Amino acid sequence: MAKALSGAGLRGQVAGKTALSTVGVSGSGLTYRGYDVKDLANNCQFEEVAYLILKGKLPNQQELDAYKTKLKSMRGLPQALKDVLERIPADAHPMDVLRTGCSMLGNLEMEKDFSEQDAVTDRMLACFPSIICYWYRFSHDGVKVDVETDDDSIGAHFLHLLHGEKPNELHEQVMHVSLILYAEHEFNASTFTARVCASTLSDMHSCITGAIGSLRGPLHGGANEAAMEMIEGFTSADHAEEEMMGKLARKEKIMGFGHAIYSESDPRNEIIKGWSEKLAKDVGDEVLYPVSVRCEEVMWREKKLFCNADFFHASAYHFMGIPTKLFTPIFVMSRLTGWAAHVMEQRADNRIIRPSAEYTGEDLRAVTPIAERA
Amino acid sequence: MAKALSGAGLRGQVAGKTALSTVGVSGSGLTYRGYDVKDLANNCQFEEVAYLILKGKLPNQQELDAYKTKLKSMRGLPQALKDVLERIPADAHPMDVLRTGCSMLGNLEMEKDFSEQDAVTDRMLACFPSIICYWYRFSHDGVKVDVETDDDSIGAHFLHLLHGEKPNELHEQVMHVSLILYAEHEFNASTFTARVCASTLSDMHSCITGAIGSLRGPLHGGANEAAMEMIEGFTSADHAEEEMMGKLARKEKIMGFGHAIYSESDPRNEIIKGWSEKLAKDVGDEVLYPVSVRCEEVMWREKKLFCNADFFHASAYHFMGIPTKLFTPIFVMSRLTGWAAHVMEQRADNRIIRPSAEYTGEDLRAVTPIAERA
Repeated sequence: MAKALSGAGLRGQVAGKTALSTVGVSGSGLTYRGYDVKDLANNCQFEEVAYLILKGKLPNQQELDAYKTKLKSMRGLPQALKDVLERIPADAHPMDVLRTGCSMLGNLEMEKDFSEQDAVTDRMLACFPSIICYWYRFSHDGVKVDVETDDDSIGAHFLHLLHGEKPNELHEQVMHVSLILYAEHEFNASTFTARVCASTLSDMHSCITGAIGSLRGPLHGGANEAAMEMIEGFTSADHAEEEMMGKLARKEKIMGFGHAIYSESDPRNEIIKGWSEKLAKDVGDEVLYPVSVRCEEVMWREKKLFCNADFFHASAYHFMGIPTKLFTPIFVMSRLTGWAAHVMEQRADNRIIRPSAEYTGEDLRAVTPIAERA
Repeated sequence: MAKALSGAGLRGQVAGKTALSTVGVSGSGLTYRGYDVKDLANNCQFEEVAYLILKGKLPNQQELDAYKTKLKSMRGLPQALKDVLERIPADAHPMDVLRTGCSMLGNLEMEKDFSEQDAVTDRMLACFPSIICYWYRFSHDGVKVDVETDDDSIGAHFLHLLHGEKPNELHEQVMHVSLILYAEHEFNASTFTARVCASTLSDMHSCITGAIGSLRGPLHGGANEAAMEMIEGFTSADHAEEEMMGKLARKEKIMGFGHAIYSESDPRNEIIKGWSEKLAKDVGDEVLYPVSVRCEEVMWREKKLFCNADFFHASAYHFMGIPTKLFTPIFVMSRLTGWAAHVMEQRADNRIIRPSAEYTGEDLRAVTPIAERA
């Protein structure tokens, strides 16, 4: 007899083991392989953290240099993939573009067996910014952008392709931080999707394609986009307060606050908030950052709800000139590391994930001949 | 504190509710919405069963006619999708082709909100045979096949595109039965993938794309392909017995036998076995069917293992001239109904599926400056 779980959505139920991260163990912390995410965000480049998550240790300088050189060499896209991206319309959902680009890549560069899992993961890490920007620039600007840049980092590569010029040092630094903050988060729905797929011993492209599809859902990725859409409608901090109070009174859903796992605060918020403040000063912003701070104050004062990682990401990305619809694809460029590491972990100690269901349907009945049906 | 589950892979754990099917409740049965799968396979066309699974009732004649007419009208592919399929090489994995085709379709015909879920599902049901055959015929034969046929059924449409001529009545009938047998199977890994994705409130194309990726895994779909590869190497029943005994002695994995959920028999086997026998007579086969029967006898005698749904599907498909590598895509054309129905069910009573993990990694540690790392 199958055993009923106490919570819907498997909440609080252990569905497997991981050595990759802890989330909210003390009510607020987030660690990647034992390192506090704040420690990593303050002291590392994203490529160091990707290396840590995927290969199990922080690289030394030589290893990091070699890893970055390798990733740099893998930014190009096969012509067939470019042809596909050119056929996706400008009004497509950017997550659908990445999902399709990843899936197409699997046709052109199939993971033949699991000995190739590191290589195909590095390849995706290197070329996902190329995929999303090639489509974006072609569909929006009619430009076939050269995706093989010599930028030092994944974040700089992305901003370079997007804006057509190398980013400044501050923007590159913020991209490192942002990609580190989003890199890994235990058994969230997209990661769990990747693990369920991996448990059938399917290929890496299938697992990542599936995960992108799950992250696309508004209950999962996309909160930073929703936050942006809200705050850009506020003309001042006072206006923001007035509007927020109205939303609260009308019990409207407000994105970017609270978290399913964290109960006290989201450890990623103070980091990205600090960088958003620096960017605001840099661009001379006197509206969006104060608006964001006031939203945070109001939500805490009225609802004791804290900002999660997404809320100040909205203003930070906006200050760097990133279109709102590309916020969630950046999440993919980062979380890809966690997804792939979970796939590798699942493969290393696998049993197919096949739960049971509680049946609530009709009792056994006979098929009525079609002529006699109502 | 998260609760540990007794079995790995969530085996025997209830992860949600469904009114769609029961699997192995009495040790062997399979029901779709209360109807025994044997009753359905003996008395219905696949489109009736798809209607049942998706809409909750068996259609009357008028409803069935209208449904088939509608599906027939949706077989065409947008030029952009054909362009994509033409760029996928002949040696790609056919499941990767379907995964990419489904994902691309989502860019061109996005499900804008859940009110469109029936329409996008019907569209996929109608055009998946077009997608797989358009790619197959183009990449293997250099032919741009006209996918808009007037065949009466999904199975006939598939065989027509594949072979370039309308199938005979027997083949069309076997396709109905086969598609019925594979249509739905509770919380298997691909269906569970679709539900996890659906639980983020993502779109139907993401859910189905993810499910295809999971079905691709050798522990899930593909057992009929593996069975075919084995039996086509046997030249007679006696040869089969000899080889099977050798495989058993060497403890080699033999696909197409036993089942994770069924303990006594797979109810789908006797049905497809009967049709495989009819097809064998029809084509004058004196090898493959007797070989298959002997394999079944040996496995039962030696291991008390029964044939599952996949084993006699191998010979049945082969007798209809279907290339082995297209066996699992047929599974998709059928199971799509179950996946989509589960997505709809998840949406109707949703909580995001987000389990916990048992942490087995490093304790908290500080980031060492890069110059000091080993």
